[in-house]
Amino acid sequence: MNVIAKGRPKGRLVGVGTGPGDPELLTLKAARILAEADVVAYFAKRGNNSNARAIVEARFRPDMLELPLLYPVTTEIDKDHDDYRSQIADFYEESAEKVAEHLGAGRMVAVLSEGDPLFYGSYMHLHVRLAHRFPTEVIPGVTAMSGCWSATGLPIVQGDDVLSVLPGTMSEFELTRRLADTDAAVIMKVGRNLPKIRRALEATGKLTRAVYVERGTMPGSVSMRLTEKQDDKAPYFAIVLVAGWSARPGASGAKP
Amino acid sequence: MNVIAKGRPKGRLVGVGTGPGDPELLTLKAARILAEADVVAYFAKRGNNSNARAIVEARFRPDMLELPLLYPVTTEIDKDHDDYRSQIADFYEESAEKVAEHLGAGRMVAVLSEGDPLFYGSYMHLHVRLAHRFPTEVIPGVTAMSGCWSATGLPIVQGDDVLSVLPGTMSEFELTRRLADTDAAVIMKVGRNLPKIRRALEATGKLTRAVYVERGTMPGSVSMRLTEKQDDKAPYFAIVLVAGWSARPGASGAKP
Ligand SMILES: C[S@@+](CC[C@H](N)C(=O)[O-])C[C@H]1O[C@@H](n2cnc3c(N)ncnc32)[C@H](O)[C@@H]1O
Ligand SMILES: C[S@@+](CC[C@H](N)C(=O)[O-])C[C@H]1O[C@@H](n2cnc3c(N)ncnc32)[C@H](O)[C@@H]1O
Repeated sequence: MNVIAKGRPKGRLVGVGTGPGDPELLTLKAARILAEADVVAYFAKRGNNSNARAIVEARFRPDMLELPLLYPVTTEIDKDHDDYRSQIADFYEESAEKVAEHLGAGRMVAVLSEGDPLFYGSYMHLHVRLAHRFPTEVIPGVTAMSGCWSATGLPIVQGDDVLSVLPGTMSEFELTRRLADTDAAVIMKVGRNLPKIRRALEATGKLTRAVYVERGTMPGSVSMRLTEKQDDKAPYFAIVLVAGWSARPGASGAKP
Repeated sequence: MNVIAKGRPKGRLVGVGTGPGDPELLTLKAARILAEADVVAYFAKRGNNSNARAIVEARFRPDMLELPLLYPVTTEIDKDHDDYRSQIADFYEESAEKVAEHLGAGRMVAVLSEGDPLFYGSYMHLHVRLAHRFPTEVIPGVTAMSGCWSATGLPIVQGDDVLSVLPGTMSEFELTRRLADTDAAVIMKVGRNLPKIRRALEATGKLTRAVYVERGTMPGSVSMRLTEKQDDKAPYFAIVLVAGWSARPGASGAKP
């Protein structure tokens, strides 16, 4: 605990990457922080279990406070609508204040984040609001994409391959344009975007190389070539991978 | 695959990601494998210490065999030259055979890889040669880029940001073209490419947002805004990061 003049203890904010799903893919550092934290916070949808919480639940201690930060119900509102934006911004403000109360009281707060906290993680919304006010540390985690390409044994990039990480939420035009112009690709946020993703891969001649991974490193994980997937049902925790080097001649002789 | 008729034990190949440098960023799974492995192998340049080895050295057991795989001396030969390509391909073949001997004798071989094994890692050259012959598993690791953006507290991507991972070895034209057309970027393999990287960032208006990290999460780590770095000296273990969201209006209200 940090020693502050006048003896008031100062809290500490720690963004903790939990890795992609397998509890053994937690880092030693994340495990240590969870053994020390006073409060463990995480974002979740009302009625849904937090995935990050599930990954580390076995490490929760009876003397540790749990602080779930529940997203407001926003299904009725369009994501690009101003009302949605302001509701969600308010929510992040309120969440940051809830965490700040604990930090102000001198507690160490671990904020769980699935995969790596600063890589498309909601932790960053607390980070940008609190890191200038309290001692803050971010513990990186194994990303979902690393978990998925490792589970399927797919060497994703080597040598001077370019890797493009593309959210499946982007327009079909953009997705196609970017897939056409990269060696390797990772498509995140698959879910209902799968038909669009298939079309973009097909249009760029990359469909036959695409690998689909659902719930990688988690119980009930599924993976297959995308061409072998019969339906277009995909959960939120799904990813599509296109490896770079395998497609290139003489690749096995190139430098790492 | 694991049970073999006639009772001959079959070895097991495990690619082990050691994370970016801090030994505490090892995963629990990697730590377990290192406690179990019969042989620990790693690529290294003659006369240089392997960085991956240094990260986990404290976990080496006296009863564990060490198998360093030493790159042939190739400084005299151009990387794009056919002689170089064939020498290095031969080297990977010989290395794979050395590992295969241990696997054939029923030993478990852990191949160390800095960061994540299948992300620009040399482990993949063994993987593609051995994974179809022996039971194989890849343990993902925290990548250097995750270690670096976490150490500097830089939220790299959110919402529908595109991330481009670009090797600093590519041509200035390509680097500039790709930097101009991405939200966020990670430039790997900095070293002597730094002047070129600076020019490409400058040309695309991204220089002021660029962050330079040297030996991230390792002892003696250095990080600063790239505009604050006075010289153009950069080691091999250096990276340049350009965050996506910070540059976008209203970013803090967007979805993770
Ligand atoms: C908001 S992002 C969070 C990414 C996370 N912070 C990381 O470091 O990977 C959520 C997306 O990550 C991907 N994802 C997360 N966990 C996954 C898993 N276990 N298997 C497959 N995809 C996963 C999915 O594409 C999902 O839509
Ligand atoms: C051959 S790649 C290996 C990447 C590694 N497998 C990973 O998962 O990040 C080597 C490059 O990674 C980057 N790198 C590796 N470790 C680093 C560190 N601790 N700090 C900064 N950059 C690092 C440098 O750009 C270096 O040139």
